[in-house]
Amino acid sequence: MAEKSSVKLHGMWASPYVMRVQLALKFKGVNYEYIEEDLQNKSELLLQYNPVHKKVPVLVHNGLPIAESTIILEYIDETWTDPPHLLPKDPYLRAKHRFWAAYLQQVAEELGKVLQKEGKPSEDMTNEYRNKMDMAEELIKAELFPNGCPSFEDAKPGYLDIVLYSLLGSFDYIAEELFGFSPFTEERYPFLASWIKALKELPDVKEVTPPKAKVIELLHARRQSNLQTKA
Amino acid sequence: MAEKSSVKLHGMWASPYVMRVQLALKFKGVNYEYIEEDLQNKSELLLQYNPVHKKVPVLVHNGLPIAESTIILEYIDETWTDPPHLLPKDPYLRAKHRFWAAYLQQVAEELGKVLQKEGKPSEDMTNEYRNKMDMAEELIKAELFPNGCPSFEDAKPGYLDIVLYSLLGSFDYIAEELFGFSPFTEERYPFLASWIKALKELPDVKEVTPPKAKVIELLHARRQSNLQTKA
Repeated sequence: MAEKSSVKLHGMWASPYVMRVQLALKFKGVNYEYIEEDLQNKSELLLQYNPVHKKVPVLVHNGLPIAESTIILEYIDETWTDPPHLLPKDPYLRAKHRFWAAYLQQVAEELGKVLQKEGKPSEDMTNEYRNKMDMAEELIKAELFPNGCPSFEDAKPGYLDIVLYSLLGSFDYIAEELFGFSPFTEERYPFLASWIKALKELPDVKEVTPPKAKVIELLHARRQSNLQTKA
Repeated sequence: MAEKSSVKLHGMWASPYVMRVQLALKFKGVNYEYIEEDLQNKSELLLQYNPVHKKVPVLVHNGLPIAESTIILEYIDETWTDPPHLLPKDPYLRAKHRFWAAYLQQVAEELGKVLQKEGKPSEDMTNEYRNKMDMAEELIKAELFPNGCPSFEDAKPGYLDIVLYSLLGSFDYIAEELFGFSPFTEERYPFLASWIKALKELPDVKEVTPPKAKVIELLHARRQSNLQTKA
C-alpha cells in the first residue's frame, strides 16, 4: 500500500506544526510531495481540504485530506504500521506520551497568547510559565526517562519527541530576539535541554528546521505588521 | 486481563468530562469502582495521581493513573481491545472522528470562557458560535453520516458520540437557565439535535446523566460564589 500511494503535504516553511508532519514522514520513511502555501493567498486546494481551520499542515493521502498536526501524526502511525512507531505499543505509555505532548502544547499556547498580546510577559506570567515547565522537566523525566535523557542512537524519535522539538527547538532564540528574555534555559531545564540538543543533531531534524535568520526576519516582519494593524 | 484487573475512576457527579469516561467504560462493558471526589477538598490520592492538573477524571488501572478525558478514552479503547470499539478501525475515519471531537471541544471551550467572564455573550459572540456550529452541523453530516443521523440500534456509541454528548447533551437547558439564551437549537441544528436525542434514549446514557435540577442548583451556587469572589 505504501508503495503506490500518493502523499502530499501542504505546508509553510516556518510553521512548527508543518515541521511535525515532515519529521513524522521522514522518521517513518514515507516519501511525500511538499507543497508550499502562501498564507496571505491560500490555494483553492487548501481551502477545500481544510474548510474549517483553513490552516496548514494538511496531509493529503490518496486524495483524502487530514488536518491538525497531532491528528496527522496519529494517522501516519496508524497508516504506515511498520516500525519505527511514533507512539509506543503499550497503552499506558501511549497515554503518557499523549498527556505530556498535550501539556507542553497547552503551556506553549498560553505563553504564545500573552506574547502576542503584550509583547513581553509580566514577571508573574514568566514565573507561572517557568513553574509549569518545572513540572514537565521533573515529571517527564521521572515517569518516562528515569535513566536519563532519551538517546536516538538506536531508536528513531516519535510523537512526543516531535511535539517537544516543534515547541521548544527554536524557542530560546526566538524569545531572546523578539522579547529579550529567555524563559527556557539550559540551567533550569537540563533534562529537556539535553533532550532537544540530542534531537537537533539528527540529520532529518536538521533538514526540516528552518534557518534561524530567516525565521527571525519573518517574525519581525509579522510583528511590525501586527503593530501597524493595532495602531 | 480484563477479568482480574482493578479499575477505579475518580470523578465528580456533575462533570461532563467524568461522564465521558463512565460512558466509555459502560459501552465497553468494563466494570469499575467509582470514587466521588469533593473538589473543594481533593483527596490525597487524586493529588498524587494527577499532580499536574489536579482534576477529575482520573482512571486508575491496576494502580496506574491516567488523566485527561480524551486520553483516557483512547487508553480504554487500546486496553480493552474487544468490540465495541470507541474509534473506527480505518485510520482515515479515526482521524475524522478525532478532528470533529477536538473541534466541538474547542468551540465549546471558547464559548465557556466568554460565559464565565461576561455572563451573557454579545451578539457578535453568539453569531460566531452559531457559525462555527453551522460548520459542524453541515460537515460532520456530509463527511461521516451522509445517510442521516447515527442510530444506535445495532451499534454502540463511540468516541465522537461520547464527546458530542458530553458537550451538548445538557447545553440547551443550562444556557437557557443560566444565561437566558439558547445558542443550540433544534431548528438550526436538526442533524446534531437528533443525534443527541438518539443518545439520550440509551439506558447507559440515562444512567450516567446527572439530574437537570441538581446540575442547575450546583451551577447557580457556583455562579453566586464567583460573583461574590469578584465583588
